[in-house]
Amino acid sequence: MRFVKMQGAGNDYIYLNGFEEEIANPGVLAKEMSDRHFGIGSDGIVLILPSESCDFGMRMFNADGSEAEMCGNASRCVGKYVYERGLTKKKKIMLETKAGTKILTLRIKNKKVESVCVDMGEPVLSPEKIPVKKTGASVIGQPFSIGNEIFNITCVSMGNPHVIIFMDDFSNRDLHTLGKQIECNPLFPECTNVEFVKVDSPESLYMRVWERGSGETYACGTGACASLVAAVLNGFSHRNAVLHLLGGDLEIEWKEFDNHVYMTGGAELVFEGEWPYKG
Amino acid sequence: MRFVKMQGAGNDYIYLNGFEEEIANPGVLAKEMSDRHFGIGSDGIVLILPSESCDFGMRMFNADGSEAEMCGNASRCVGKYVYERGLTKKKKIMLETKAGTKILTLRIKNKKVESVCVDMGEPVLSPEKIPVKKTGASVIGQPFSIGNEIFNITCVSMGNPHVIIFMDDFSNRDLHTLGKQIECNPLFPECTNVEFVKVDSPESLYMRVWERGSGETYACGTGACASLVAAVLNGFSHRNAVLHLLGGDLEIEWKEFDNHVYMTGGAELVFEGEWPYKG
Repeated sequence: MRFVKMQGAGNDYIYLNGFEEEIANPGVLAKEMSDRHFGIGSDGIVLILPSESCDFGMRMFNADGSEAEMCGNASRCVGKYVYERGLTKKKKIMLETKAGTKILTLRIKNKKVESVCVDMGEPVLSPEKIPVKKTGASVIGQPFSIGNEIFNITCVSMGNPHVIIFMDDFSNRDLHTLGKQIECNPLFPECTNVEFVKVDSPESLYMRVWERGSGETYACGTGACASLVAAVLNGFSHRNAVLHLLGGDLEIEWKEFDNHVYMTGGAELVFEGEWPYKG
Repeated sequence: MRFVKMQGAGNDYIYLNGFEEEIANPGVLAKEMSDRHFGIGSDGIVLILPSESCDFGMRMFNADGSEAEMCGNASRCVGKYVYERGLTKKKKIMLETKAGTKILTLRIKNKKVESVCVDMGEPVLSPEKIPVKKTGASVIGQPFSIGNEIFNITCVSMGNPHVIIFMDDFSNRDLHTLGKQIECNPLFPECTNVEFVKVDSPESLYMRVWERGSGETYACGTGACASLVAAVLNGFSHRNAVLHLLGGDLEIEWKEFDNHVYMTGGAELVFEGEWPYKG
């Protein structure tokens, strides 16, 4: 079975062409292929599929075999794949995902996809919808104590919960311990992703992310979106800024006219190959 | 550049055919290719090369770009590669490595290499050569205290230092903490690899390994050899036994007639592919 390994901001997935390959047991295959010693190694697999309602469909399976809803960083790689491999000539692509239809806009240079913009939808600020156990219309810069310290937290959902903490400097902080302490604090009934953000300028933010259930990761697309929204709400940044993540940069814009958050970033082919086993 | 990913007992390397590809900067390439998110992902790369003195040569580069001397698990994969890809029809292969000439014996079934036996040479027991700061001709089952506990240690070099600790059960032990405490204890002037071994029967040993500089790994060929030698010296096993490692099984024999240790195990193709960048 042919496969392509791609990464977007350090989220690395194996992409399989569902137009050419029949994949009977994608959950089992995801576990086998994703193993970083005995398989190809990845965060999971992505099936690129025909769709009745959209241009293409995508299904994602995590490294543990469970099906995932959507990943913004992976959807950019799907955009690169379908364009550069001649599956479409469109530069605006409707993508059917388990989290609904996503719209990708490709930026092309010399017939290559240089970057892809993904409409990530509207941020949710209502505490009960995030969910976070607070009253009021939103949680913006509210004090929250962990150990002997008090942090100001801002809570945003992008379909999944995020708590954003701004810091002057996090180079000397033990973010793993902090992330663990915050992730399943009783304030967050479904636990939460945690973003630590350092404001470099109104157009430039540094971010590290502690993902719910995974620990620190190279990148989190929804976390970058939530962080930009939080920075705007706190008056720290413009509505359009570059987020610097461990795995790479993402340009995030929270547009006023439709209240949607748009994420633009690269998508890179890492290598391609042949998997000797059946799916 | 074409590559093949193979693994032996969980040691996974990228194999490059130096007869077909010219590899200008193998250290740089090893770092790029070995990265588990932005590259192919591996413990390092192995170049299969022509040799003037032997049938083939191999050079190994670790994931950090440094050159390695030899790895028994990787040399088995070299045996599988050169036979199955038609580079040789020999079943006994002389391999030139930075640690000297190694002799591989292939066991073939249906034209496939089922397993490979590697002559790993003679064990070294002299404390000053291992090195371990002890007097006498060898260190076999001597008491050694860590924290509030006393362990019996046996020290063996297979070209690199090993300390072996036998335990009735290690399923509930924090081997990472123990490994860290022992690895660079002043008793071991060049630090040491640490093997924890549970004797299942005189023909069957369970082993976990803490590698010097790397922490716990799936497998360590020299560690498995050292453990078998230690088990024989303590009267716990026969001279031929199966070692069960996290990454797979290895059959180890310490032959009486030549005092050499022979390691037999599998070698598996994981996948192959095309790396888009230049080396």
